[in-house]
Amino acid sequence: MIDKAYEELIKMKEKIMRDSYTIHKELSESVESILNELWINYSPESVEHSKKLLAIDGGMWVKETRQGVIFIVNAKAIVFEGINEINSEGKVLVHIFSPGNYAKERIELLMQLLELQLALKLVENVDYVLLDGSFSKKLGRHKSELKVDLLDDIVSIDKILSLEEKDEDNMLRFLIAENQLVLSELVSRYKDKLLFISKNSKSSDLFKQAYSDITILELFTQNCGYSKILEKKIDENYILSRKASKLLSGLNYYFTNLRLEPSERLFRLDFFNADKIFEYLKVLKPVSLKGYPYPLIKVHKDVRVGKEDRERIYSILEMKRKDISWWPSQFY
Amino acid sequence: MIDKAYEELIKMKEKIMRDSYTIHKELSESVESILNELWINYSPESVEHSKKLLAIDGGMWVKETRQGVIFIVNAKAIVFEGINEINSEGKVLVHIFSPGNYAKERIELLMQLLELQLALKLVENVDYVLLDGSFSKKLGRHKSELKVDLLDDIVSIDKILSLEEKDEDNMLRFLIAENQLVLSELVSRYKDKLLFISKNSKSSDLFKQAYSDITILELFTQNCGYSKILEKKIDENYILSRKASKLLSGLNYYFTNLRLEPSERLFRLDFFNADKIFEYLKVLKPVSLKGYPYPLIKVHKDVRVGKEDRERIYSILEMKRKDISWWPSQFY
Repeated sequence: MIDKAYEELIKMKEKIMRDSYTIHKELSESVESILNELWINYSPESVEHSKKLLAIDGGMWVKETRQGVIFIVNAKAIVFEGINEINSEGKVLVHIFSPGNYAKERIELLMQLLELQLALKLVENVDYVLLDGSFSKKLGRHKSELKVDLLDDIVSIDKILSLEEKDEDNMLRFLIAENQLVLSELVSRYKDKLLFISKNSKSSDLFKQAYSDITILELFTQNCGYSKILEKKIDENYILSRKASKLLSGLNYYFTNLRLEPSERLFRLDFFNADKIFEYLKVLKPVSLKGYPYPLIKVHKDVRVGKEDRERIYSILEMKRKDISWWPSQFY
Repeated sequence: MIDKAYEELIKMKEKIMRDSYTIHKELSESVESILNELWINYSPESVEHSKKLLAIDGGMWVKETRQGVIFIVNAKAIVFEGINEINSEGKVLVHIFSPGNYAKERIELLMQLLELQLALKLVENVDYVLLDGSFSKKLGRHKSELKVDLLDDIVSIDKILSLEEKDEDNMLRFLIAENQLVLSELVSRYKDKLLFISKNSKSSDLFKQAYSDITILELFTQNCGYSKILEKKIDENYILSRKASKLLSGLNYYFTNLRLEPSERLFRLDFFNADKIFEYLKVLKPVSLKGYPYPLIKVHKDVRVGKEDRERIYSILEMKRKDISWWPSQFY
């Protein structure tokens, strides 16, 4: 990096620190008058220790080489009773896309599909399912005149049918539809059990400020509690899968921002039954670690591809920088 | 990562090695008969040492935090005579986007804009300009009924006007237009000097195979030379800036894949004057380092944000993992 960059970085830091007083003052003027309406201090009087929680997360490793995009996606589901692991199940996919379009998008959809398949497979035997990320992100938002109905007869929890498609654009569309199918099956049959948890929510529906609702709540509140529950209707026009759009059409979901422990960070919770918010709080509170559900922390640790994993992958693939030494095109 | 992933990775590797014989056989059958038409063995008899080459590249550092996306983009232009540095000039931008859309796209466009501004500023005093990346990537491809003409009167080499726009969608459109404006100014006034060099070209216009042209040429040729020169017409419909679309409308550019040293890798060259290809080869050959133009290697080294840079950035920002300790929203 050129030396001038450091000078500019230091200048920017100083400017932010000078400006911070003004920003906070302006923000507090517009926020404080409505804070009482939008934030409820609350902590459950009793908690629930013996429910079965299924925590699910996925991880990925992606390497773009001249020969194509090699990737590993893995997902894991752990059944917890409180903070004790009862049993678990994993899924993995190792694959290569030839150099082309939408590789990143398709790989993320594959990872999510493994997670949703695990959820659908194991939901029957648990009380709640904790999924990492918002409901709307999982459903996606893809306006299209042309619905996909190719996969509608089969909701598979073992196979990924979209992978059989050769055309990249079609595969992307099918993957979106296949995710929506499994998700809609989950929602239509088990909606009261589903809890979608996002720690980095950027939504600003509550305060409608340039800063996210979570940022503002972290600035101006300290107690346990939750923000005013907002409602959203699912718009079938943005669902690609015809069957999923029928199953979810007009359904409402709810969201709030929770703080489970005093002065800790908040997270956003998406759910389908607004009457059950106190039940959910009773279940989430005793598994909180610094304000975040411990089961999701544990499963995240198990699926993420860390430094050691990457080194082992590189050594298996005999990979140096961008090249794989044994790859056929290098030999002939 | 779950353990099963390693087993699957090893299986995949074994399968690829088993399949490689078949793939190579199939490929060589369809390629070898047309190779003579599409590849020309050639090495210039004399070379040109005393021309002035301007090599330009950019680097970036991006960190997404809860408070927004902080980034540094820097660009550098070095004037070379052969492989000797004569002088240089740098540009840097340190900035924050509030959490929002298209951050990555906008940052990449900002980096490219710094590079193009440096090119426009310094092109007058040099014989050739070496830019990293393909011409079509720099121009972009953005179909839109609505042309942008807001910035058309000013081609700035010092300021970035798009940054003044608050709306994210508009800023993205303006940045595309502003890049196209500077690029079209460069092309319309200095096109014979411009050489666009891409080391990772994935285009397959030549052999029209699932593998890229460069991959195929690296498999089936060893000598110095270049592939059949192909021509492309610029389609004004995909240019957002009204002025740039007028300046570039209907213009042709050319591209070929070059090998400057025996058995070394190829790169793609985009240029505007097909008659000058031998002149370009005479200039590029003596600055080749393992087949790639040394001036671009050197300037890339100067702008890239390496491990030490990142550590220094983290220390200036007092940053740990995803948080910056002094950032205002953490204090109040």
